Amino acid sequence: MNAPARQPAPRVMGLDTSLRSSGVAVVQARGSILEAIEYCVIRNPPARPVSRCLQHLSQSLADIIRRLEPDAVAIEGVFFCKNVKTALALGQARGAALAAIAAAGLPVYEYPPRRVKLAVTGYGAADKDQVRRMIVALLRLRDEPQEDAADALAIAVCHLHGATRFHGALAPKEI
Amino acid sequence: MNAPARQPAPRVMGLDTSLRSSGVAVVQARGSILEAIEYCVIRNPPARPVSRCLQHLSQSLADIIRRLEPDAVAIEGVFFCKNVKTALALGQARGAALAAIAAAGLPVYEYPPRRVKLAVTGYGAADKDQVRRMIVALLRLRDEPQEDAADALAIAVCHLHGATRFHGALAPKEI
Repeated sequence: MNAPARQPAPRVMGLDTSLRSSGVAVVQARGSILEAIEYCVIRNPPARPVSRCLQHLSQSLADIIRRLEPDAVAIEGVFFCKNVKTALALGQARGAALAAIAAAGLPVYEYPPRRVKLAVTGYGAADKDQVRRMIVALLRLRDEPQEDAADALAIAVCHLHGATRFHGALAPKEI
Repeated sequence: MNAPARQPAPRVMGLDTSLRSSGVAVVQARGSILEAIEYCVIRNPPARPVSRCLQHLSQSLADIIRRLEPDAVAIEGVFFCKNVKTALALGQARGAALAAIAAAGLPVYEYPPRRVKLAVTGYGAADKDQVRRMIVALLRLRDEPQEDAADALAIAVCHLHGATRFHGALAPKEI
């Protein structure tokens, strides 16, 4: 009798986009153990024109995907923005990122912010510090990650938790 | 004595982006004569996931730029959106487009909608039909272009008019 085929360890890229500072994290699951493969912040200096910022974000993501080969990407849905100007700027960063991810052939899953906090801390209204502390503990990190990188790690962890736990109405939205 | 160096005829891509239907036009100036080289609409079917739509938009623009080699791109600035959801969706389409354009090394110029109407019809509050009729006349088109393509043609015409007419405070905003 053959041994049952083993599922390869899923590797997920979490992404928290904005024009000037986007958090990116690649997390791998080996059974119930999660490991942060890499996390960083893609930055754009304030003086760089918008179109160059978007190109830098898009190109950096394409490079990271090629190098670390994640199976899927998870991002936070945007359900609130201060105003139309903020929404447009955030939309532009997301658009550049999503086009690069789709060009690499990866599926993208979107989670409500509350669901990310719930998956990481067990509490949907947790604050940023609680999320960051739980991420450091869960992934056994040596140092506190920068805020955007911590958000990206949390989104990746949410997807990896959800992949085994949620079904049906709670399944993530593929966009 | 050498003949004075002749300025090459500038070729501009006008762009009116949205997720499901983006107008694209390439217009060339030979002295004061403007010629529509090509214009089209990049469409995405309603059922296609957002990330695939953005990839299709980005890839189609990269292909058109490679084939028709414009010198610059002109788009309309967004100064009004119904709500945050619309702004986010429009921003995503613009972001995917701008990243592709910057990757091709082209500068992008942004014009207020009023300025586009003024450049084409002489009247900043002209309606869409007036803009379309003037575009057909100015570019000696045989058929009425589709609405998004007409908008893209108008933006390209605005840039080519402006390139010789406007200076200083009226110079277009490079983004």
